[in-house]
Amino acid sequence: MRLKIAVLAGDGIGPEVTHQATNILRAVAELGGHEFTFVEGLIGGTAITETGSPLPTATLDAALECDAVLLGAVGDNKFNALPPDKRPEAGLLQIRQALGGFANLRPSIAYTALSESSPLRPEVTKDVDILFVRELLGGLYFGAPRWWDRESNEAINTMRYTRDEVVRVARVAFELASNRRQKVTSVDKANVLEVSQLWRATVTEVAKDYPAVTLEHQLVDSMAMHIMNIPRNFDVVLTENLFGDILSDEAGVITGSLGMLPSATIGGAVNLYEPVHGSAPDIAGTGKANPLGAILTAAMVLRHSANLEQDAKAVEAAVNKVLNAGYRTADIARGQQPGQTPVSTQEMGKLVHQAL
Amino acid sequence: MRLKIAVLAGDGIGPEVTHQATNILRAVAELGGHEFTFVEGLIGGTAITETGSPLPTATLDAALECDAVLLGAVGDNKFNALPPDKRPEAGLLQIRQALGGFANLRPSIAYTALSESSPLRPEVTKDVDILFVRELLGGLYFGAPRWWDRESNEAINTMRYTRDEVVRVARVAFELASNRRQKVTSVDKANVLEVSQLWRATVTEVAKDYPAVTLEHQLVDSMAMHIMNIPRNFDVVLTENLFGDILSDEAGVITGSLGMLPSATIGGAVNLYEPVHGSAPDIAGTGKANPLGAILTAAMVLRHSANLEQDAKAVEAAVNKVLNAGYRTADIARGQQPGQTPVSTQEMGKLVHQAL
Ligand SMILES: CC(C)[C@H](C(=O)O)[C@@H](O)C(=O)O
Ligand SMILES: CC(C)[C@H](C(=O)O)[C@@H](O)C(=O)O
Repeated sequence: MRLKIAVLAGDGIGPEVTHQATNILRAVAELGGHEFTFVEGLIGGTAITETGSPLPTATLDAALECDAVLLGAVGDNKFNALPPDKRPEAGLLQIRQALGGFANLRPSIAYTALSESSPLRPEVTKDVDILFVRELLGGLYFGAPRWWDRESNEAINTMRYTRDEVVRVARVAFELASNRRQKVTSVDKANVLEVSQLWRATVTEVAKDYPAVTLEHQLVDSMAMHIMNIPRNFDVVLTENLFGDILSDEAGVITGSLGMLPSATIGGAVNLYEPVHGSAPDIAGTGKANPLGAILTAAMVLRHSANLEQDAKAVEAAVNKVLNAGYRTADIARGQQPGQTPVSTQEMGKLVHQAL
Repeated sequence: MRLKIAVLAGDGIGPEVTHQATNILRAVAELGGHEFTFVEGLIGGTAITETGSPLPTATLDAALECDAVLLGAVGDNKFNALPPDKRPEAGLLQIRQALGGFANLRPSIAYTALSESSPLRPEVTKDVDILFVRELLGGLYFGAPRWWDRESNEAINTMRYTRDEVVRVARVAFELASNRRQKVTSVDKANVLEVSQLWRATVTEVAKDYPAVTLEHQLVDSMAMHIMNIPRNFDVVLTENLFGDILSDEAGVITGSLGMLPSATIGGAVNLYEPVHGSAPDIAGTGKANPLGAILTAAMVLRHSANLEQDAKAVEAAVNKVLNAGYRTADIARGQQPGQTPVSTQEMGKLVHQAL
């Protein structure tokens, strides 16, 4: 198996966690006799500083020639005063759009070993296994018109969806649910928004092609509550772009830390892989960052771009083993118990490597 | 003290809980020698069924002549197929707009007696006392253009804010924080949305007039997480309309149930009071509804429309007393302990009345 992976480490803790993820990919390649090659590229604040652009052409060209793109994180407080289209995040949104992946998969799993890390009671998080399917190329993120007019002191963003955009991401959700617990929960605000009415009608229509899968609709406000109250009730959760942004971060609470959450964006020319967490500039370079989100993201590369399901499972099992052995980065050390060992970013990466 | 209150009970559990709230207001009037009069009006699904409109002119006219409007809940699955502007919820949005209140205050308080009702650990919810200030007349709820074109199969909603709209609601937040713990957390998505950039810049400007109050900015996705992880860190949380809708429902998780949450909308011609919970048609008429959200909403009427702070506190204390005595409606009976007594909507109302 040959795989060419563009590595865009980005800002803050991006490089540290990505380094651990590529280490794991190298290990998998060596163990299985695969040939993985890595091409590095600039993105985000680092790219602005070095080239003036959050997504240099060289990065995009390289990414489009690869089989997968592994991204660290982007964002740097230094650029807070800039308008959205000049910020590090613009690089992320541009590459998402250029690669064309519209279905962002974000698993939210409760690890037994981490049940003490969550602010939720263990009996609430027990056995939770949610897969968010977040539409990633539509809605307020990309809708036009969008402006902030400093003369009239007014600003506008546009939430826009077409039926086709909803159909394609809904299909991904139903396909995935078919191989899981056969349930899709679609999130919208159909009691207020026309866009949500289109969303709900379209998802309902797509559901007819998947008679074995149960479809339920939830309003986004209720859903924000249900995810905390009864997370075990959910299997695949299908959302538009911004609702998915909010709810999948919220679901990090189940796992105990955003630092544990991986994501994969599929459906486009090249799949894009990024941990859900941000660049966390405040802890960059301190060794406090949790690399498991990035490592689990590497597992998703194996699953969705290399078709190496067994290896993906092996990486996930290695993560589980290390957690069960009590190793904890700072973010998952809440309520530290006897038998737990605090470790750095690098140590955690090494431990997963050894467990593999 | 004289007060004329329009009572719009609405749909589902609306009438049952509102009935308990007006009972409490009557009791306060009697005890204090005040003259409260109540005028009933139709709204929501009930109004559609009886008059064809979710907000009949008669209701609006009556409401505008009152000193306060007490609303139950609106929404009925019967009308799910209708477009947003024909649904029960349209009546709610129309009356919000007509009354002109732009600052929706939603306290989220952790009651010690209910610490077992929350899916969050008691050490996380302990002493939490958050006041959401949700902008209620702008954003995606009211922004134009808005449409779902069934020919082109495309739909649009518009998130729109002007500087003035942000200034006025921000002032309310800072004023309230000045009398609380001197902290405002403003929520936006300024790394992506132009509207959020206007929001952030404006709030930052308003903050200059309140040097004693600390202002912090949070992205809505991070905030959805922080509210669960570190709810004690927040005092006043200022949000645009939809973010406030989502986050304040989520914060219901802290209290243990949405059924506990009151709200008041101030700043307009007539203040509007509504519990945060919905119409819950599935439990309507079963006696399972929790009337405490509506009763605590009545306390907010006393506070914000009658200037009877002592009486408002007395009602809140009565609620606390009843909870401490172990009485529980179904929604707050999670993890039932010995010493707890399950009660119906009506019994709960009576108990608060007696405790008063
Ligand atoms: C950094 C930001 C633009 C991004 C988003 O909002 O999509 C992030 O929050 C995410 O969830 O991947
Ligand atoms: C019923 C609905 C229109 C309403 C809203 O979204 O504002 C409700 O969820 C609320 O929070 O008061």
